[in-house]
Amino acid sequence: MNDIAPEGELNARDQLIEAASQIMRDGDQVDLSLSELSLRSGLNSALVKYYFGNKQGLMLALLERDMRNIVNSLDALVAKDFSPDEKLRVHIRAVIGTYFRFPYLNRLLMRMVRDAAPEVSRKIADDYLVPISNAYKRLIDEGVQKGLFRPIDPGLFYFTVTGAADRFFSARLVLHHCFGQSEMTEQMRDDYADHTLDLIMPGLLSRNSA
Amino acid sequence: MNDIAPEGELNARDQLIEAASQIMRDGDQVDLSLSELSLRSGLNSALVKYYFGNKQGLMLALLERDMRNIVNSLDALVAKDFSPDEKLRVHIRAVIGTYFRFPYLNRLLMRMVRDAAPEVSRKIADDYLVPISNAYKRLIDEGVQKGLFRPIDPGLFYFTVTGAADRFFSARLVLHHCFGQSEMTEQMRDDYADHTLDLIMPGLLSRNSA
Repeated sequence: MNDIAPEGELNARDQLIEAASQIMRDGDQVDLSLSELSLRSGLNSALVKYYFGNKQGLMLALLERDMRNIVNSLDALVAKDFSPDEKLRVHIRAVIGTYFRFPYLNRLLMRMVRDAAPEVSRKIADDYLVPISNAYKRLIDEGVQKGLFRPIDPGLFYFTVTGAADRFFSARLVLHHCFGQSEMTEQMRDDYADHTLDLIMPGLLSRNSA
Repeated sequence: MNDIAPEGELNARDQLIEAASQIMRDGDQVDLSLSELSLRSGLNSALVKYYFGNKQGLMLALLERDMRNIVNSLDALVAKDFSPDEKLRVHIRAVIGTYFRFPYLNRLLMRMVRDAAPEVSRKIADDYLVPISNAYKRLIDEGVQKGLFRPIDPGLFYFTVTGAADRFFSARLVLHHCFGQSEMTEQMRDDYADHTLDLIMPGLLSRNSA
């Protein structure tokens, strides 16, 4: 029935979410067709209505799956007791790793913010954007208090970090469609993470700590 | 006829391009409907076929209008004789200013790269991405030779800069749909440019020059 080997153990609901994820990843887009979902998952597309109400409900469930993980990891990281700059390095590598696995994630987030009903947009903000923003604030504040970071706006810094990480998407598209290169490799991901950290961290560190 | 005041002087072809630009900007998307184009421009949508062949042709013409300017300005900047770090500051402010005016630009570029025929994707790469990439290489090389910059990968650096600039789009969407704030202001643009420069430049400058 389901020919996607690693997902053999998933239940039907999770299979649909995973199929949506793969369609967005492979197609470089955040649009879904029910027929492609059915083909990928090996499941009847009527199950979309059953589990998620409609296609937008499925897209929200995929967003929930991928974003929940980010929010939880970030909260756990902030609570740890190693130094703020090390926390930030770990976090930035994790963000780049996440966008490497789910290159559609930022576009899906923005699509939902744009197209969902106002109360759903607001819930997306409350569930993901506000907690992430608060975690950035705590992390930056901690670094400033310890004399490690210069004071910067955590909100703007969040946009810089996600912006840099999201470039994987552009890079992948350009490499694929313009230069015929098939896939981004893990080596490229790691090189880009190194590059991003080397570029961003000196601007964040205070003059004393740099 | 045409109720968009500042474009009163444009010819029909340019009016259609400007209407497409405004639709993408106001709607936070890169999709176009012919009826909305007609409504915005006050022109018969049959003119799209006449001037551009089809909707994709119009989207390419809009991309050409907005990207050509970037490529030309960047080439002119690189040829000037002030210091490489000052050139880069001017350039990064210009990129952020461009994405402020045309928040759809990166998505339009990626959409064209993804959806156009392979020869068109390749032409987009040759016309815009390769020249920009070459200009970055010359600019970084010049800074490294003068001992101002540490050696970094200009290609990765390009992704960092466009990534940071493109965040205006996300910020605007989130502010608008989640927090009911109507528009990004020029003050926010300038604050973000300052933030980006303060964050990125120290990581680029060599230890001696920093």
